[in-house]
Amino acid sequence: MKTVIIGGVAGGMSAATRLRRLDESAEIVVLERSGHVSFANCGLPYYIGDVITDRNALLLQTPSSLKARFGIDVRVDSEVISIDRAAKSVTVRSLATGEQYFEDYDALVLAPGAAPFVPPIPGASRALTLRNIGDTDKMAAAVDAAASGPEPTAVIMGGGFIGVELAENLTERGLKVTIVELADQLLAPLDVELAALVEKHLARHGVRVLTGASVTEVGADSVVLSTGDTLPASLVVAAIGVRPETGLAEAAGLELGARGGILVDEHQRTSDPSIFAVGDAVVKRDAVTGNEALVPLAGPANRHGRLVADVIAGRSVASRPVLGTAIVGAFGIVAAATGWTEKRAVAAGRSVRVIHTHPANHAGYYPGAEGMSLKLVVDAATDAILGAQGVGGAGVDKRIDVIATAMRGGLTASDLADLELSYAPQFGSAKDPVNMLGFIAENLRDGLTETVQWHELDAELAKGVQLIDVRTPGEYARGTVDGAINIPVDELRARLDEVGADVLVHCQVGLRGYLAARTLAQHGRRARNLDGGYRTWARV
Amino acid sequence: MKTVIIGGVAGGMSAATRLRRLDESAEIVVLERSGHVSFANCGLPYYIGDVITDRNALLLQTPSSLKARFGIDVRVDSEVISIDRAAKSVTVRSLATGEQYFEDYDALVLAPGAAPFVPPIPGASRALTLRNIGDTDKMAAAVDAAASGPEPTAVIMGGGFIGVELAENLTERGLKVTIVELADQLLAPLDVELAALVEKHLARHGVRVLTGASVTEVGADSVVLSTGDTLPASLVVAAIGVRPETGLAEAAGLELGARGGILVDEHQRTSDPSIFAVGDAVVKRDAVTGNEALVPLAGPANRHGRLVADVIAGRSVASRPVLGTAIVGAFGIVAAATGWTEKRAVAAGRSVRVIHTHPANHAGYYPGAEGMSLKLVVDAATDAILGAQGVGGAGVDKRIDVIATAMRGGLTASDLADLELSYAPQFGSAKDPVNMLGFIAENLRDGLTETVQWHELDAELAKGVQLIDVRTPGEYARGTVDGAINIPVDELRARLDEVGADVLVHCQVGLRGYLAARTLAQHGRRARNLDGGYRTWARV
Repeated sequence: MKTVIIGGVAGGMSAATRLRRLDESAEIVVLERSGHVSFANCGLPYYIGDVITDRNALLLQTPSSLKARFGIDVRVDSEVISIDRAAKSVTVRSLATGEQYFEDYDALVLAPGAAPFVPPIPGASRALTLRNIGDTDKMAAAVDAAASGPEPTAVIMGGGFIGVELAENLTERGLKVTIVELADQLLAPLDVELAALVEKHLARHGVRVLTGASVTEVGADSVVLSTGDTLPASLVVAAIGVRPETGLAEAAGLELGARGGILVDEHQRTSDPSIFAVGDAVVKRDAVTGNEALVPLAGPANRHGRLVADVIAGRSVASRPVLGTAIVGAFGIVAAATGWTEKRAVAAGRSVRVIHTHPANHAGYYPGAEGMSLKLVVDAATDAILGAQGVGGAGVDKRIDVIATAMRGGLTASDLADLELSYAPQFGSAKDPVNMLGFIAENLRDGLTETVQWHELDAELAKGVQLIDVRTPGEYARGTVDGAINIPVDELRARLDEVGADVLVHCQVGLRGYLAARTLAQHGRRARNLDGGYRTWARV
Repeated sequence: MKTVIIGGVAGGMSAATRLRRLDESAEIVVLERSGHVSFANCGLPYYIGDVITDRNALLLQTPSSLKARFGIDVRVDSEVISIDRAAKSVTVRSLATGEQYFEDYDALVLAPGAAPFVPPIPGASRALTLRNIGDTDKMAAAVDAAASGPEPTAVIMGGGFIGVELAENLTERGLKVTIVELADQLLAPLDVELAALVEKHLARHGVRVLTGASVTEVGADSVVLSTGDTLPASLVVAAIGVRPETGLAEAAGLELGARGGILVDEHQRTSDPSIFAVGDAVVKRDAVTGNEALVPLAGPANRHGRLVADVIAGRSVASRPVLGTAIVGAFGIVAAATGWTEKRAVAAGRSVRVIHTHPANHAGYYPGAEGMSLKLVVDAATDAILGAQGVGGAGVDKRIDVIATAMRGGLTASDLADLELSYAPQFGSAKDPVNMLGFIAENLRDGLTETVQWHELDAELAKGVQLIDVRTPGEYARGTVDGAINIPVDELRARLDEVGADVLVHCQVGLRGYLAARTLAQHGRRARNLDGGYRTWARV
């Protein structure tokens, strides 16, 4: 039994090593177009930024280490140029010698990944991308050159995860960085009000963020924007997104998905029963709807690689739909998300309940607590968790991971209320931020409280609803939502005569507003609370 | 509708405030025996250690703040001395004036907590305990006095969570600390081999740990041990455990559980339909078996307090059994656990699969990775997760919280393999430590690998099994399992003639051993892997 694997990084190498563990006698050949296998893709931006200083640290395995431990025949600089499905063989070109040869297979695994998209604009060839070790060496040299120039500047096209990571790392290398993003926000896996927190943080660290703009031309030391402006740019990076490498599969007549990836079943099998595919090149199934999705993430690539080996070895396994849990850090801020955003749920026609909170990562009375903003998107009909997002400092990763696990376990939003999470004052709170999301979800589900979202506020005010800031006079004086009068929550019962029949209350983060709304509702008012309070509205 | 609540800290105060939120017209009286309500119990050790320097930070709410915001009648220094169930009233004694009065109720909530146990030994009255603000002030003064003495020493009776926290905090204040623990290990929620890691860490920071010993007498400046030895002790602390405060309930004829707490149903209702109870004084249901359990933790106390208010307000809710997720930190090491230990599962007659791993909290190629030791206890019959433990640095809390959530969601151990957890190199790994536990669980479930536990090794060797250390010669030379020969994993295929028919392999953490065992099994050997490798065996 001979398995040929095209692509020797996350998914491909997971398949190769698992297959050896399952079958000592299997013949395994890995063909990698670039000069390295099993390298640390996700670490590349940090090598550029000198956070990782040892280039060898990026090379997790080498062809010789894989040969010694796993008996795998790994060939780098080896491009597969075609697949002959009838003959069950591939044509390989050695990029070192130019030599071409056939390699036959019993099973073929496609793990070619996805290629950074470079927009077809004049001068685009100067735009650098970051996919493999070769790209990294090239970018590192370019950064060295730019950093020693008179006015080191960088323009990053695209404000996704890689763009934001590179913005940090290029800044740390002394470059003045501008991110140019076509959408009206950074980081598409977040909703706009959470992405805004990242934007502000980047700005505080000297990164300029231009949204709703694109680069239309790359010049020798500048770029031209869709706005007509010109920006200096010693360095230009394309981090707009990636496109599945489907060329080989398409040429071989394999079925593709509607959005362009290689189509596979739950065994990662393509439309040819002898050919499997994994990783960024394939279509995945969305965990919320089961629909096709492109989710270029390391986790699913690795797991699906392992699974393909199981399938080839005859084990009964099936891949699961993906949530797309992801995280990014920059200048000490962390942004993470799992499942769906509000905008995506609304676009799909779902009726949603949305919850914003601004908790601390651990008990406030213990020194060093760091703040975060959390958002939970809940199916209004079923109380199912559709997705969650978090932006802040320490502990964001933990809360998103807990919620992702709850989603995998089929827990509802209200079920989050009684999760038992580890608590000592330096690690959490007796009512953890995730429990609090559950409490609020339950209150919303049961109609104990009614909230208004930040983006609904203007329409409500236009209808003439009364807006009351229930914080202290001091907080009110430092800035409030436009149009609010001030009645502190502790004075509310004594000042009911100042409160109209239809009222919208707000506080700093939503908690006092909730209390106020409960009190007022029981005194005959229609009282709604501004979800997430002043902080969500003002995006601070 | 009038509700009287006895006890104004976690469970009692959660009940009081939730009840106000649900019912603006409810009459709510909170009677607290000590001088403070709603204080930060879990912060008290850190005030002793000057980590929390502002005493007011411990006081989350005061009677006047609760009056202003919630209209709750909070009375401190107010001890309830009896309950008249027929008359539905309690007798209250003011500890300030000595005055006694009746307070009638429609619903009564018992949240009296649990009292630190002080052993009945000579001189025990000098032993300090830490339960409330009064105790804290007393201990803080005693520490100040001891710290300024010529040879500041402290003996802590009991090596549970509070004992370990106090050991850190008293050491930070300059005291030479000894923990005296009757059991053969610290931290009962951990198994012995993980607790040993905490013991070693404490020793490295100057704390002496004596297990299998107890204090038999407390002298003026020393203690006598069960071993006959005498230890100097400027300060003596009793942190042996707590006992549910059931006196009032018992005197009122309420039913108690077999292990001593107040018996309640899933609505936290006692055997008297008008009386509820929550918190450390009550019996809880164990999430694994549904049996009665005493679980004195802040999380369940707070959640059950909230639930009691719901029940009193007529809402349809029910409490869930508890896992007992808990965490403790000391001198930078973290120990956390959820569910059952191996020793508990074995004592209960369960057949278990046990997994030890020693992962890093994030990708090793990114600077600053910290190590941890994880243990998963799995029901061998069903693949259900019975419990998990972790000891190490950053990220232990996250992994235990994720596993606790998986247990709540009914996921099996093998299901952990495909959890989608947030990954970027500074936060985790593409195959997170929790995923790795799932991979191993699946391999064990499917019979792909067979492991031997550290405590089974001697018996296996006595049977004549061959023991092979598959690490490098350098690692082997620095220390190996007694009796092992060395064949590095990468040389195994070439040196098969040196391998007998029944072999036990080990490496450093278990991964190379797994590879070796897979290879050997496919070459006709019975090959088992030492679970957790040299590190679990040597407890390093």
